[in-house]
Amino acid sequence: MSQLRIPGMVDAHVHLREPGATHKEDIYSGTVAALAGGVIGVLDMPNNTPPIVRPDRLAAKRKLFEEKAVADYGLFAGSDGTSLEDVIAMAPHAVGLKLYLDETFGDLRNYEPAHLAALFEAWPGPGRIAIHGESDSIRAAISLAERYGQRLHVCHVPDPDDLLVIDAARQRGVDVSCEVTPHHLLLSDEAILRLGSLAQMKPPLVTERKRALFWERLDLVDLIATDHAPHTLEEKAGKKPPPGVPGLETTLPLLLAAVDDGRLVLERLMELVYYGPLRIHQLRAPDDTEVTIDLDEGRYTLERGGYRTRCGWSPFEGVAALGRIARVRLRQCDVFVDGQVRAEAGSGAPLARAG
Amino acid sequence: MSQLRIPGMVDAHVHLREPGATHKEDIYSGTVAALAGGVIGVLDMPNNTPPIVRPDRLAAKRKLFEEKAVADYGLFAGSDGTSLEDVIAMAPHAVGLKLYLDETFGDLRNYEPAHLAALFEAWPGPGRIAIHGESDSIRAAISLAERYGQRLHVCHVPDPDDLLVIDAARQRGVDVSCEVTPHHLLLSDEAILRLGSLAQMKPPLVTERKRALFWERLDLVDLIATDHAPHTLEEKAGKKPPPGVPGLETTLPLLLAAVDDGRLVLERLMELVYYGPLRIHQLRAPDDTEVTIDLDEGRYTLERGGYRTRCGWSPFEGVAALGRIARVRLRQCDVFVDGQVRAEAGSGAPLARAG
Repeated sequence: MSQLRIPGMVDAHVHLREPGATHKEDIYSGTVAALAGGVIGVLDMPNNTPPIVRPDRLAAKRKLFEEKAVADYGLFAGSDGTSLEDVIAMAPHAVGLKLYLDETFGDLRNYEPAHLAALFEAWPGPGRIAIHGESDSIRAAISLAERYGQRLHVCHVPDPDDLLVIDAARQRGVDVSCEVTPHHLLLSDEAILRLGSLAQMKPPLVTERKRALFWERLDLVDLIATDHAPHTLEEKAGKKPPPGVPGLETTLPLLLAAVDDGRLVLERLMELVYYGPLRIHQLRAPDDTEVTIDLDEGRYTLERGGYRTRCGWSPFEGVAALGRIARVRLRQCDVFVDGQVRAEAGSGAPLARAG
Repeated sequence: MSQLRIPGMVDAHVHLREPGATHKEDIYSGTVAALAGGVIGVLDMPNNTPPIVRPDRLAAKRKLFEEKAVADYGLFAGSDGTSLEDVIAMAPHAVGLKLYLDETFGDLRNYEPAHLAALFEAWPGPGRIAIHGESDSIRAAISLAERYGQRLHVCHVPDPDDLLVIDAARQRGVDVSCEVTPHHLLLSDEAILRLGSLAQMKPPLVTERKRALFWERLDLVDLIATDHAPHTLEEKAGKKPPPGVPGLETTLPLLLAAVDDGRLVLERLMELVYYGPLRIHQLRAPDDTEVTIDLDEGRYTLERGGYRTRCGWSPFEGVAALGRIARVRLRQCDVFVDGQVRAEAGSGAPLARAG
């Protein structure tokens, strides 16, 4: 029996849909999906209903995580472009500030330029300002970060050329980090023909050529995060399918197949899914935590269904994977063993700030 | 901390030099080197001084293993071309019969054709007849195995074209298995320019083109065995340097780097170094045995010195490796932990016959 033991994955970008859309996912089902995928910690985004733009909402959401989470977590604060004070008040309790500079799922976007500048000026940290944005918005955010000496994180980089822009900013001394998603690395726009609306997400899938460029430029990337964004199959089949795909349960096996292919070395994978997310978001690794992955089955292809996420499907159907998550140990407890969750709801803890 | 846990390696071809040449290696130093390389079992060859060609010598050698080995083991019987009866008498106590059809280190070779045929006719098993031989000898041995319905194993295949000959014999129904060495997979005759006599072995290293063919035809290979053949640096620097190189401590890290490169998948590696050797030689895997390999250091290059084998050197200096053997658990006991041998001399056991 061959097994790989790794510290696990910390997924710096998930949408667990609670409060507001628990028919797609909730904190319990989402963190169960996390454990099933070897993800020991998640950073949850603020585009809930209602959005997490006030300290009372952040506190209420944290209470829900305290009651329900089985994996560790951090919560992003958001802004609806109205109150600077509310954003500042959330800062000590949030893992960062997430700003939606372009359209996606939820109501958080379209900040007035002056208010956006004020946010970059006023955000006190210690977390980063993380942005959802297309290429123009990324350039704009880099300018603001540069002007105000702010630490920036670019979520799900939409185009491999944006990596060059980000790298140029770094060379000038701007503190800008970035993430790419597994679907941008492993699916191209060809998948839209195959999967239809199931393959719709923001930012959209890129051409095969650009997908290859993401791999070529992977050394410019700080971390891989799933942007786990569950929607039901019914919603995805509807007239206005919402953008987003789930990813918590599939990312480690998909990327281990890439290690197996020689596209990635394991050391670099662990940097991208564990040490990188912790470093970029200044978090401390939980003690005595380990994910055990069975390797005996060898390579297999992922199925469309059979997942723990409430939405129940994966866009990676037919894609090569390696390894089955056999055991997750989190802070001295075996929380997931042979497909069974052993953790009590609420046993997840906030990821502690480093240093 | 990332770790790989595997069942370990069973090395089907070693020369631990005891009795007869314990200045190069002995059963204790050789099995310590095995554990240090994640090798939980070794099959030792009969070209000792005196050679293991009589039941009393086999029994005496087994007694030495019982007193000194810290890894599990099986012993090959040999023949000096004189007594069929002695060979037959050793059969129940040997893992197989090793015949030297061409020149190498030691005195066992040059059988009369009629005696060789008689050996193939008379060998009662249950182990295979394993041969050391160049391409012509391999063809001859296959013919004899075919004629007498004997199960044959071709050691350290000297040329990738021999794999095609072996495969053709299999297609005809001959039960012939084969092994290749790590040095034939990872070094080419270029190494002779670099390393001089340190890179001299039988069979000799092949050209870069043939080395690539070994990889291309690896699906025709049943197992990888080291042919661990220690000689001192003084002997290797002498006027008539003896053929052979050590390999017990370097094979798993070298082949894990090949997995990391995408040249080999882990599943296939385990087949080649563990399940294959056990299956071909009809041995049972020891219970509750596991090798833990630390992966955090990433890729590194091997050094010439600093090994546990008494000869103290490696021909793989400068070659890429991955993983450090952190722990070896053998039949419920932690026998090697963080570079320290914890097993008592004599705690190794004979590998049990399967079924």
